[in-house]
Amino acid sequence: MDNNTNNYLADFPALNQEVNDERLVYLDNAATVQRPRQVVQALVDFYEQDNANVHRGVYTLAERATKDYEEARKKVQKFINAPSPNEIIFTKGCTDGLNLVAATYGEQNIQSDDEIVILIMEHHSNLIPWQQLAKKKGAALKYIELTPDGELDLTDAKKKITDKTKIVAVTHASNVLGTVTPLTELANIAHQHGAVIIVDGAQAVPHMHVDVQALNVDFYAFSGHKMMSPMGIGVLYGKANLLRAMPPYQYGGEMINDVHRDESTWADIPFKFEAGTQNIAGAVGLGAAIDYLNNIGMDRIAQKERELVNYVLPKLIAIPDVEVYGPQSPAKHTGVIAFNIKGLHPHDVATALDMDGVAVRAGHHCAQPLMEYLGVTATARASFYFYNTKEDADQLINAIKETKEFFNIGTV
Amino acid sequence: MDNNTNNYLADFPALNQEVNDERLVYLDNAATVQRPRQVVQALVDFYEQDNANVHRGVYTLAERATKDYEEARKKVQKFINAPSPNEIIFTKGCTDGLNLVAATYGEQNIQSDDEIVILIMEHHSNLIPWQQLAKKKGAALKYIELTPDGELDLTDAKKKITDKTKIVAVTHASNVLGTVTPLTELANIAHQHGAVIIVDGAQAVPHMHVDVQALNVDFYAFSGHKMMSPMGIGVLYGKANLLRAMPPYQYGGEMINDVHRDESTWADIPFKFEAGTQNIAGAVGLGAAIDYLNNIGMDRIAQKERELVNYVLPKLIAIPDVEVYGPQSPAKHTGVIAFNIKGLHPHDVATALDMDGVAVRAGHHCAQPLMEYLGVTATARASFYFYNTKEDADQLINAIKETKEFFNIGTV
Repeated sequence: MDNNTNNYLADFPALNQEVNDERLVYLDNAATVQRPRQVVQALVDFYEQDNANVHRGVYTLAERATKDYEEARKKVQKFINAPSPNEIIFTKGCTDGLNLVAATYGEQNIQSDDEIVILIMEHHSNLIPWQQLAKKKGAALKYIELTPDGELDLTDAKKKITDKTKIVAVTHASNVLGTVTPLTELANIAHQHGAVIIVDGAQAVPHMHVDVQALNVDFYAFSGHKMMSPMGIGVLYGKANLLRAMPPYQYGGEMINDVHRDESTWADIPFKFEAGTQNIAGAVGLGAAIDYLNNIGMDRIAQKERELVNYVLPKLIAIPDVEVYGPQSPAKHTGVIAFNIKGLHPHDVATALDMDGVAVRAGHHCAQPLMEYLGVTATARASFYFYNTKEDADQLINAIKETKEFFNIGTV
Repeated sequence: MDNNTNNYLADFPALNQEVNDERLVYLDNAATVQRPRQVVQALVDFYEQDNANVHRGVYTLAERATKDYEEARKKVQKFINAPSPNEIIFTKGCTDGLNLVAATYGEQNIQSDDEIVILIMEHHSNLIPWQQLAKKKGAALKYIELTPDGELDLTDAKKKITDKTKIVAVTHASNVLGTVTPLTELANIAHQHGAVIIVDGAQAVPHMHVDVQALNVDFYAFSGHKMMSPMGIGVLYGKANLLRAMPPYQYGGEMINDVHRDESTWADIPFKFEAGTQNIAGAVGLGAAIDYLNNIGMDRIAQKERELVNYVLPKLIAIPDVEVYGPQSPAKHTGVIAFNIKGLHPHDVATALDMDGVAVRAGHHCAQPLMEYLGVTATARASFYFYNTKEDADQLINAIKETKEFFNIGTV
């Protein structure tokens, strides 16, 4: 497939617009991606045809809505190869899923002097819940550090994970460094020491084939909106025996078995963790997003992104005064590329790139301890998705060169 | 305005369909309502034009999305007359908001031997969080009972709320009995005893003018999907001084000030309570729903529903063998009407009505302690919204009569 053409662009109305009189090049896909017509249409169809509340309704619309919702759950199950749809909890998003595990499994299983091990490159959503849990319980929070190349240091991991470790919480793919965590190895180490492994998959599931059974992880959380679903929907996968042993997270309708004045009993999974009216339309939209991804194929999506990184990363590194964080080799890099231009604040870089139609994010990317580790307060970040093209990459490279010229930074 | 015509029907595609070869009469509005084209279009427009993640983005789309999101917050603020937009927390829904308050304010302020007072007619979402909190803290959970007519018993309220009471958690309008709680009186009683009052407004905000300052309540939670917004979005209003004193509920991106390896500080309200990517499109859709409601006017909506209840309730009560729960006088009744047909299980009633195109809910309506109080396990429930018509009411009444005939119950 030729990367200079883009078979997908027509499906994404938001990408067919100009900003500041320039063609929009959307490179903030690590924050949220754009939606294809097919997903938006699934939302419209649901609201115009099947809209009702689920499960307890015995009329036609409620039955249709329930079928739509539970079919979406099965699509998710198959997409990540979970053993059972009962292990798929619909959440508000990845952050919600990780907080759920910390507040239930974590609250139940962490005692004083236990250890929780996380990565220095965690997003705040998979860092602060464990930091605060450790603080509350008098447990220790330990960080696995990086190799000089910006990858996870497996030697350090083997030192940090011990028999005192009860939880290993790790990102599957960094939202800053563009590295992929060796999950299978970490899962093995964690399990050898009797710990569970909890994964933030927000930056992985949209971009690569994820098989929770092959990875042998205990919990795996991700967001829909980073994989083209509507906002406000996410997924928490958990092993059934662990989910069943956990207390509920939120209380309300649908998650109960029996409620009396002074006591209640809970429904079985997954409903125990789905209190109140869920984002049914969001789940249906997530199902449509999975259909769209499956139609292309996750391997082809990964390949498309690899080709883009192979093309853009060397060009970016070759620009004088541009520093790229994380591995310098495209083979070790996902489509997330954090960089700085010497002498320029990343916010100014992002603002200047926006004048050329290029949307990148600037800031600490909700990873302040990693920023501290890297010795910066912020970076710019370009993040690619399969619908991006070599033309997009060229526009980014040119815009960075123009930005340097504009601010009169070094040589172009 | 003539109730036999419906100026709104054309805006609601889902209402213009047949089920089981009959015109759909949607009377499950207490569970979720239908969406007008204008709300669905707002969703489509957001995804096709402004879609981006908010706040930390410095490019055009992110700035537009942030503006959209914060304008939606201001629309909510004005709609319920909150003093400041900072007191409007976007949640996943009403259940999420109530659980937030229980897990933060409740967790922080309830000690053993304190008392929490709720109503016997609470929905599980405003019952179980307090039941479980009381259990965990060794506090007492007390229920305010009903008058023989099915209304809140204010005399009992004055007995139950004492100086030991720290929290009074009440529904604004019952999702079963169709009664409205005298909130101002309860707020006064609660405040006289130094307690806070927390309100489940899910069944009120879509149907009547709600002014949180006039009511002088401390927390007020509601869902968007019951007032025509997309699913997966809700609102928690809280007084600023209370919200500021509370710990965060979920941890992650956007809710922080500074994060270090071993400690973190939090952002100011409302962001402290909005961890992770929020349902931005959902908030925008909620704003569009508020525009739609404001265009009609909440007083007119309340009037429209009152006219429908005046029309249908006496007809329903007049059918032999039909028992209506809650007040028998239309003047005391919202558009939520729970009923049973003697000798028939409500599920069979709902199934039979569905054959005539009439969608009603059957079950315990997530209010099992109330069911116990009423001496039933379940009821059928018809719930009206402003877009319903007298024709809908007639179709309900006729379908009930036909159902009785079909099952050969008493006289029609």
